[in-house]
Amino acid sequence: MISLRHSLGKIRLPLGFSFAAVAAGIKVSGRPDLALAEAGHSATAAALFTQNRVAAAPVEVGRAALLSTGGRVRAVVVNSGNANCATGRAGIQACERVCREAGKLFGVPAAQVFPSSTGIIGVRLPAEKIRAKLPELFATRSPSQRGVLAFAHAIMTTDTRPKLASVRFRTASKEVTVLGIAKGAGMIHPQLATMLVYLFTDVSATPRELRPLLREACGDSLNCMSIDGDTSTNDTVLLLASGASGARVRDVRTRKKLSAALSAVCQSLAEQIVSDGEGVQHVIRLFVEQARSREEALLVARTIAHSALVKTAWAGADPNWGRILAAVGRCGVPIDPSRVQIFIGSQKVCRNGIACTCNERQAHRTLAQPVCDVRVQIGRGQHSVRFLTTDLTAEYVRINADYST
Amino acid sequence: MISLRHSLGKIRLPLGFSFAAVAAGIKVSGRPDLALAEAGHSATAAALFTQNRVAAAPVEVGRAALLSTGGRVRAVVVNSGNANCATGRAGIQACERVCREAGKLFGVPAAQVFPSSTGIIGVRLPAEKIRAKLPELFATRSPSQRGVLAFAHAIMTTDTRPKLASVRFRTASKEVTVLGIAKGAGMIHPQLATMLVYLFTDVSATPRELRPLLREACGDSLNCMSIDGDTSTNDTVLLLASGASGARVRDVRTRKKLSAALSAVCQSLAEQIVSDGEGVQHVIRLFVEQARSREEALLVARTIAHSALVKTAWAGADPNWGRILAAVGRCGVPIDPSRVQIFIGSQKVCRNGIACTCNERQAHRTLAQPVCDVRVQIGRGQHSVRFLTTDLTAEYVRINADYST
Repeated sequence: MISLRHSLGKIRLPLGFSFAAVAAGIKVSGRPDLALAEAGHSATAAALFTQNRVAAAPVEVGRAALLSTGGRVRAVVVNSGNANCATGRAGIQACERVCREAGKLFGVPAAQVFPSSTGIIGVRLPAEKIRAKLPELFATRSPSQRGVLAFAHAIMTTDTRPKLASVRFRTASKEVTVLGIAKGAGMIHPQLATMLVYLFTDVSATPRELRPLLREACGDSLNCMSIDGDTSTNDTVLLLASGASGARVRDVRTRKKLSAALSAVCQSLAEQIVSDGEGVQHVIRLFVEQARSREEALLVARTIAHSALVKTAWAGADPNWGRILAAVGRCGVPIDPSRVQIFIGSQKVCRNGIACTCNERQAHRTLAQPVCDVRVQIGRGQHSVRFLTTDLTAEYVRINADYST
Repeated sequence: MISLRHSLGKIRLPLGFSFAAVAAGIKVSGRPDLALAEAGHSATAAALFTQNRVAAAPVEVGRAALLSTGGRVRAVVVNSGNANCATGRAGIQACERVCREAGKLFGVPAAQVFPSSTGIIGVRLPAEKIRAKLPELFATRSPSQRGVLAFAHAIMTTDTRPKLASVRFRTASKEVTVLGIAKGAGMIHPQLATMLVYLFTDVSATPRELRPLLREACGDSLNCMSIDGDTSTNDTVLLLASGASGARVRDVRTRKKLSAALSAVCQSLAEQIVSDGEGVQHVIRLFVEQARSREEALLVARTIAHSALVKTAWAGADPNWGRILAAVGRCGVPIDPSRVQIFIGSQKVCRNGIACTCNERQAHRTLAQPVCDVRVQIGRGQHSVRFLTTDLTAEYVRINADYST
């Protein structure tokens, strides 16, 4: 029923949305850094935000706006190159000014403009540069694939490629489309949200109907991944529903199909974000099984995924499972080492906490693939989690240690 | 009163101990990998072990031995090149066999021989190679600086230099010496213990008297450091007291001076371990201040010290304090960003959670030093912690991703 598409040639557009992007001079490189998405008059919205106590100005402003409008969004304005975080009162005011100006163009209050920023922390947002480019953004917006691609490119920072996924399904004789656009690359360890993710659908739904759908779709995808363990200050996932397809979420079959479509899109975006992580050479699909609860499985997964020693072993395709076992041992869960099994690919490399006969060369070859499964069973219960993560390479260090003044 | 000595030329030997080391062929390199320390007949002991649920065989055997003897240790046998961890029942038996053989040489039960191992996890311990070399170790032991240096070299793995510190003080007309020997380099984030640390003193004390002294000395030193956030499976700190100096811990002044001496030795060893961390180019003395409790300060310090983004910024001497602030924000403490101050060296770079006027070039130059102070004040209370940590370099990745089969 659902076919997942994330090759750029096949991106499907939901009805009722227009997109545009320009270069506003925020990025030193001169690349596009300002993006607009316009939703129809009656679009509804739900959002998840970073749980970092240090939240960027657009997170504060966007959260307050959604509360004040009860979940109405007419337009989304995103800039890259500057996070507008740790910028104090002036940062909030700059963000509000951008929303006000954009609101004027659309004839709506500032609160119906949803702001996002991504880039360096602690540097004043050049709001003037943004405001100067809003009319051009407004004039060039279009409900086209070109517009979508421009949007996806303009929100990138250290990403090497745009991240898009879409799903189209039929329900009650209507065609419904879900489109997702994301950026990632670094400071990726979302906790109830993730970097910048925008989900557009033409279904008709109230904000109250959208919220559980969004939470559910993110739970197993965007909330189950980590590149470097650092939770960003700007993480935002926004879901917009234009209603233009005529299909209604109130209909149970439509809701079920939409839920599956959202999950598929979020899962694809999570995979795209992780595989484009800074310096990433290997993506690891980490399965933690036999935990007492999902939280316990997540704790084990996160500890493994954030171990510098495990991640560097993965960089070298080194089947050094002792480091994985040591990470499990220190994660805080009272595991019994003699009940732990570890698999690399389909091969068991650690049986009951100790080495077992295995083909080490084959384990090395498995880990040398761009994507590899690692499975850890802890023998405590029935719960499991699938967690997407990456290796830690010298290239990651180079990207993040690069200082030039 | 106390002069800290860790230049190799001035290592002071406590009375009542002998040392030796040989190459037993456990390390592929053929370097010395088996070390012996002998204590007098009446030596007492206290120890701290890793809190990792995956504990190596020598940790299990050593802990049980100390319990069964009530804190008596006649000899310490350490091998490097193999951790004897995740080796199951066979690993325990191999460890016990080594202790039994060594005990025979000294005419004591196996339980008075304290074992340690460090090296790769999950590989069978070549106990035969060790047992074959015990007589040579026994025959060549000596109460000499040469013996101490041989011991310190033989316990090294990826360490580039031996780690020693000693303090001598006078009390009640007696001369008391504390000598510490450690190894470190990787998998360093001790939790109530640390990699391998041996502390020798010639004071006279019961095991019960030694325990609080050891715990106190480690609290602010070996327990307040991290290289890569990975807690080892073999962490052990052992304190031995020979009584040969004639000074008694029962005497309050002696206990106070001993406590200060132990703290100074542990602090020096912690500094030596961190500055010899794998691939380390910069050591950061991280001060977290104004926390509600010491635990809260430690949580903030550990989150900063384990942030891949913060550590890679330090590798590039990049004064990117936004990453530090973002780490503080996600650590779980309900901080108010507007009360956070961050200093690099003596210069404030973040005032009340936002950028303040500062000389960025100077901050860069400060961070480019081999050792740099970073101070984070969170405006919540009176507690503070001093935490030793490091940058994360491409060389760390190279060392730990190096896979060759």
